[in-house]
Amino acid sequence: MAQKKAVCIMSGGMDSTLAAYLMRDEGYDIIGVHFSYAQRTQKKEYASFHAICQNLHIKTRYALPLDFFGMIGASALIDTNIAVPTGGIEAGVPATYVPFRNGIFLSIATAIAEKENAEVLSIGVVEEDSSGYPDCTKAFIESMTQSINLGTKERTRLRIATPLVNLTKEEIVTWSLQREVPLHLTWSCYQNETLACGVCDSCRLRLKGFARANASDPIAYEQTDA
Amino acid sequence: MAQKKAVCIMSGGMDSTLAAYLMRDEGYDIIGVHFSYAQRTQKKEYASFHAICQNLHIKTRYALPLDFFGMIGASALIDTNIAVPTGGIEAGVPATYVPFRNGIFLSIATAIAEKENAEVLSIGVVEEDSSGYPDCTKAFIESMTQSINLGTKERTRLRIATPLVNLTKEEIVTWSLQREVPLHLTWSCYQNETLACGVCDSCRLRLKGFARANASDPIAYEQTDA
Repeated sequence: MAQKKAVCIMSGGMDSTLAAYLMRDEGYDIIGVHFSYAQRTQKKEYASFHAICQNLHIKTRYALPLDFFGMIGASALIDTNIAVPTGGIEAGVPATYVPFRNGIFLSIATAIAEKENAEVLSIGVVEEDSSGYPDCTKAFIESMTQSINLGTKERTRLRIATPLVNLTKEEIVTWSLQREVPLHLTWSCYQNETLACGVCDSCRLRLKGFARANASDPIAYEQTDA
Repeated sequence: MAQKKAVCIMSGGMDSTLAAYLMRDEGYDIIGVHFSYAQRTQKKEYASFHAICQNLHIKTRYALPLDFFGMIGASALIDTNIAVPTGGIEAGVPATYVPFRNGIFLSIATAIAEKENAEVLSIGVVEEDSSGYPDCTKAFIESMTQSINLGTKERTRLRIATPLVNLTKEEIVTWSLQREVPLHLTWSCYQNETLACGVCDSCRLRLKGFARANASDPIAYEQTDA
């Protein structure tokens, strides 16, 4: 019997990397999918994606340029006229929110899954211990699962796996270390591509995870608040 | 009070053009959105989009290049190794189906609508009198509406207008003629960019609509079966 296939959306960050390793541990043949969406750190994330794929021995890779995101903008991750917040995580949807990014990513991954006859998509969304993006919730993912199955061929039956959705950042670090996920290859910083800034929301969440897991982060930072 | 905005997905074809005119007649300020998705006739459709926008006095236009579709392929509209069927419409999903195209289009249009504070998206899907694509059904559109509203900011409330979903091609032609929609500017052919082929499913549906409406199509054909 042919091995079942999983299309794994992989940003190059910690969360989606752990998600891909968990799918591999479940026995899936992994198809790695990465999007360059005109974000500030796209070159670094692209390199991280390929390094992680190499580590996981992923042969089928789709690294798709989504330059059109730059024509929409409307996010601090894309529009350099909007500052990336560095003062600590606040309530509400932050300026780094990219309108409906995960809806777009899941839709494109669906097309790839339909082509490749995959049966599951994975995405590294985290609901609680996160930046508060509306497209990272269980309710959204459940609805998208229905939409995807209604809008594709009858024989295409897709499940969206969100193995991290209920985890804390501490658990993500702990699970990653237990599974020897190559965290040194991952990149989380929203604004820098060489030394991580240490103060954007994404760096703060990552550093909090390592601190609570009593572990040290293998990547280098420009500064940290701790 | 500011005029309400509608994001209209406009392929350059008859259906989505009539949909945009109907939205204009409902009083919306139209934002025209067009996608070039590596399809065979992308240059012609791009030109049609701009000509129709000019006719409708649409100032805000997003013509987005989605070249990544070419890296997925899996459709006769994109992969030139897959022939466009010309023998007449058959049962089932045809080779011209582009995996989850409308899911991807609606997701990107959602990001634009969220940026532009629009309250409605229009798409020219036709359910019954059509090629039989799974992403053109009312059930899919209803589910996507829910997904879109769950996956965007709380204040973003979007409706998807599908004013043509229950129409026949005859009705689409009749309604267009009644409203002076510039059908001479529209393009439907799946494979040619100068003279329409007349025998692909899209040409056949269009020609059937004109024939049943007792009207003549203002565009030129290479051949017709009639």
